[in-house]
Amino acid sequence: MPQDSEDPGWPGTDSPQETSVPTDPEALTPPEQRIPPELVQARATIDNIDAALIHILAERFRCTQHVGHLKARYDLPPEDPGREHQQIVRMRRLAEESGLDPDFAEKFLSFMVTEVIRHHEDIKQAYQRGEAPEV
Amino acid sequence: MPQDSEDPGWPGTDSPQETSVPTDPEALTPPEQRIPPELVQARATIDNIDAALIHILAERFRCTQHVGHLKARYDLPPEDPGREHQQIVRMRRLAEESGLDPDFAEKFLSFMVTEVIRHHEDIKQAYQRGEAPEV
Repeated sequence: MPQDSEDPGWPGTDSPQETSVPTDPEALTPPEQRIPPELVQARATIDNIDAALIHILAERFRCTQHVGHLKARYDLPPEDPGREHQQIVRMRRLAEESGLDPDFAEKFLSFMVTEVIRHHEDIKQAYQRGEAPEV
Repeated sequence: MPQDSEDPGWPGTDSPQETSVPTDPEALTPPEQRIPPELVQARATIDNIDAALIHILAERFRCTQHVGHLKARYDLPPEDPGREHQQIVRMRRLAEESGLDPDFAEKFLSFMVTEVIRHHEDIKQAYQRGEAPEV
């Protein structure tokens, strides 16, 4: 007997039997509010990616804090336009190579650099007050 | 003849001999513009971290584009406040665990989500115009 071609269930899932008792909370959720299993899967991937991003960003800031101390110790300015220009060019190239929007990559770099410069200014001021925190 | 005691070189580097022919471009750079080797090392690490970040972000957007198509296909709204709240709580926790400023982590998530919602709206409009691009 042919199955109903307009199956209301999400692809890859069995739709609940109309006669079954709804013991699963999912079965109590109206169909229009259910999350397709493909979306659940994609969100799990995004969550893993986000955990990786947070840990890598933590390491980047650990490194830029070290740079802040070096700059304060050697009296180098917090900002370095030449270095930033090189980073923009490189980030845009890497974005193109990996399929990311280069404009987004540049905005992302700027987003990080703004935070880093703020940290570097704080460190410089700490050195100027005679407080030289550990590198 | 006594050497100048105010050695312009950075710690751990040999300053160029005054009598040598400056074939190395570094030797032509005034000492105050030279970059300490520790800073060169830190920048190399930052560049590697940035390449990792760009590639992971490219993969995240590949995944969120897929989500955009799923949402358009199943007529789900581009924004999902419940999901975003869960993500904020989780990102802040991961930031605390990894030594990143939780406020920065939250700003970073918001920065990405703003871009993602823009993409999802574009995809939804493409579906509404009857253009259903490949997932």
